[in-house]
Amino acid sequence: MNQKLSLDELNRLSFEEYKKIEKFPVVVVLDNLRSLHNVGSFFRTCDAFKIKKLFLTGITGCPPNKEIYKTALGAENSVEWEYFSNVYELAEMLKNQGFQIILFEQTRESIALKSYRPVSQTALFFGNEVTGITESLLDLADFCVEIPQYGTKHSLNVSVTGGISIHYVIENIIEKQS
Amino acid sequence: MNQKLSLDELNRLSFEEYKKIEKFPVVVVLDNLRSLHNVGSFFRTCDAFKIKKLFLTGITGCPPNKEIYKTALGAENSVEWEYFSNVYELAEMLKNQGFQIILFEQTRESIALKSYRPVSQTALFFGNEVTGITESLLDLADFCVEIPQYGTKHSLNVSVTGGISIHYVIENIIEKQS
Repeated sequence: MNQKLSLDELNRLSFEEYKKIEKFPVVVVLDNLRSLHNVGSFFRTCDAFKIKKLFLTGITGCPPNKEIYKTALGAENSVEWEYFSNVYELAEMLKNQGFQIILFEQTRESIALKSYRPVSQTALFFGNEVTGITESLLDLADFCVEIPQYGTKHSLNVSVTGGISIHYVIENIIEKQS
Repeated sequence: MNQKLSLDELNRLSFEEYKKIEKFPVVVVLDNLRSLHNVGSFFRTCDAFKIKKLFLTGITGCPPNKEIYKTALGAENSVEWEYFSNVYELAEMLKNQGFQIILFEQTRESIALKSYRPVSQTALFFGNEVTGITESLLDLADFCVEIPQYGTKHSLNVSVTGGISIHYVIENIIEKQS
């Protein structure tokens, strides 16, 4: 008979186990996010997909914070994170370390998500809820990537864009490994 | 030079145009969602991916509502929606109308998202933030589908799960059409 799995049956890792295991060579950068709800949601997505590190920049709120906890539900303790005030300097640093710079933004040169093939060492940037990615980052980008949309609204919620994109990147990396 | 696209350049549809165009043969069912933020986010995702109809059931809040608006940003006016108090009766009705019943839930028989191949006429069910899908629906399900996760937390945020799954289903349908 079909039954829901209990938390035990899900075989999730403990915080201690999670800290020790190898993560995917992917970092996520939140570029001046306004909503703490979205920040919390990104923590949970980064936990689920074994993201190496989450960078919070500019006006993006940081843990410990009650509002972040409400959606992160503790994932702010499992995911490694760091705050940078200047997102451009962070992007330069990551580029120098050999990360591909991928901006999720609808631009004149952006490619559709399904055309994008992640390489190893990838930094995924997600922008402010209203203004999007910080303009100056466009010069550093290896690719701007967009999720094709067919409706009336300008864009998806940024944490939904994050979920779709991070899931896509990790599935691609797993497929290449197997 | 690479530049962000303006709202005009995105060529989004007006509400009037959107109402008239053919949608994908996919409906989304929110099974007793607690958070109005999540409801709003689903409206925006359903708008972006031309979902035929969004069903709100049980304790799920309905528009007009200030909290839903904050994340839906007007998508509650473009997406067709209806409220049903009893999610089981709705599922029976949809099954009788020829919809496949797909529950996003981690169960003993659930399959991974990438193994799932959507057919025409699909109803996608997303469950409560804490308790998940209403237990009785398991008997009506054609498939239970889960998104493989590698971290410490029980599950992704439900609107993120919704985004990943709805995007996957619509991309599959578009691929089959082309």
